[in-house]
Amino acid sequence: MKKGVIAGIEMGGTKTVVAVGQADGTVLEEFRYPTTDGEETFKTAIEWLRERGEPRAIGVAAFGPVSVNKARPDYGQMLKTPKPGWAGFSIVGALKEAFPNVKVEIETDVNAAVLAEANGLADVAYITIGTGIGGGVMADGKLLHGAVHSEFGHWFPRKAAGDDFGGVCPFHGDCLEGLASGPAMTKRWGKEPKELLADPQAWEFETYYLAQACMTLLASVNPSRVVIGGGVSQAEGFHAMVEEKLRTMAKGYFAALEENTPFVVPPLHAQQAGIRGALMLLA
Amino acid sequence: MKKGVIAGIEMGGTKTVVAVGQADGTVLEEFRYPTTDGEETFKTAIEWLRERGEPRAIGVAAFGPVSVNKARPDYGQMLKTPKPGWAGFSIVGALKEAFPNVKVEIETDVNAAVLAEANGLADVAYITIGTGIGGGVMADGKLLHGAVHSEFGHWFPRKAAGDDFGGVCPFHGDCLEGLASGPAMTKRWGKEPKELLADPQAWEFETYYLAQACMTLLASVNPSRVVIGGGVSQAEGFHAMVEEKLRTMAKGYFAALEENTPFVVPPLHAQQAGIRGALMLLA
Repeated sequence: MKKGVIAGIEMGGTKTVVAVGQADGTVLEEFRYPTTDGEETFKTAIEWLRERGEPRAIGVAAFGPVSVNKARPDYGQMLKTPKPGWAGFSIVGALKEAFPNVKVEIETDVNAAVLAEANGLADVAYITIGTGIGGGVMADGKLLHGAVHSEFGHWFPRKAAGDDFGGVCPFHGDCLEGLASGPAMTKRWGKEPKELLADPQAWEFETYYLAQACMTLLASVNPSRVVIGGGVSQAEGFHAMVEEKLRTMAKGYFAALEENTPFVVPPLHAQQAGIRGALMLLA
Repeated sequence: MKKGVIAGIEMGGTKTVVAVGQADGTVLEEFRYPTTDGEETFKTAIEWLRERGEPRAIGVAAFGPVSVNKARPDYGQMLKTPKPGWAGFSIVGALKEAFPNVKVEIETDVNAAVLAEANGLADVAYITIGTGIGGGVMADGKLLHGAVHSEFGHWFPRKAAGDDFGGVCPFHGDCLEGLASGPAMTKRWGKEPKELLADPQAWEFETYYLAQACMTLLASVNPSRVVIGGGVSQAEGFHAMVEEKLRTMAKGYFAALEENTPFVVPPLHAQQAGIRGALMLLA
């Protein structure tokens, strides 16, 4: 591996990306493959990296729940999860065993994405809407963890008038993820989000819930921009609809919203945000 | 003023506290007086401090909206507010004019309170329920600002079954503050909160909204403890009721909640949290 070239790994629920690149987020070469269990998924990444020479540093963007708070004794490990072969798996341990001298930085996938999408701002939130709903936050120029990490899909938005859907979250039913994730849309309307593009009612509900999500972020972490990515956010006009509903409900109250237009934006790097952010952890 | 003795000012909506003390939060002497406009309120504080000798440092805990983010050009000033005689008032400017060599640190009142209440934890949130509802956050050992600061009273909780109250927030009607502040309770039930202690329905609603607030904090800033203070939180068993409802709705999902019992607690320092926190800003 050339001097200055580093590695990134983005673990997704269904696919993993391993790459070599630079700490500014540039991907020089990447390999995408299906995510299986912890052992096998990392064996594949490690072999691919070995063929390119020993990396001096690896940034990891991991799906949750994962311990990314350095103050925790289980730092670098996957936490309790129903996903087979992941609970307790040590990501940092596996990488250090393969490459004893490597520096490893690990973050949630959504925090890595917010790093890639911050674009010079110090206070930004990122929401991704796909199989689940997750959120990452940069506040005061630093990625936010809290005790474990944000779980932005799991709070209760107010239901839209006329919405009696019970939701799909196995824990909470009609929390944000239960009402507005990709599987929620598919179950509610009997069609996948991409087949619903011409259905205004579907997007009325969807953008209403995401507008509430933005207002909840303003009330709590107070970003100056919210980036919304993920498959469900790709309908035409999606971000403008969320922003319009947000401004209607916020009633001019939040200085951070009043001072920033547009406030709700699509990602700059689309599907590359996670792997770019993984590399940028090493900057 | 003796060596090592510093000053703190806590600006409240109705009363202001000025004190001399120590950076560990110890108050040696304090003076409480009614808050009027910016000029007059600070003139009183400055005169009281002058009689005790020139302070070398002053910590200020300010009601919002106030610019506490050092990256903003209006740092240290009050932002746009309907409160007469405060919009644009420069707190840091007034103190520096009176005491040219003084070091000034300024925070929101709720962030100062979270500093006083953190008790060794790195990830803590503080909610106060009084005339309004505000929140402060310490995450990863640092007070969180975001672009301006949190406004935790102003998001939309799900309404309780049977609650058709329209709320009292002049901006948002039935946002959290509109539904659960002191004035909201008084308007809803026709009695002040302290006269409602024997009314279980009033506390069912109130603790349901605060339990949602805790869940929303877990989803966003993920604290390992939530401190709830302010007049309305002083009903017997209030914190235990909030925690019980929170655990019922969270369904074991949040590691930060599962790992910490009790999770919802009263303040250690009651009405002294703000002024103690103001002094602790100088540590």
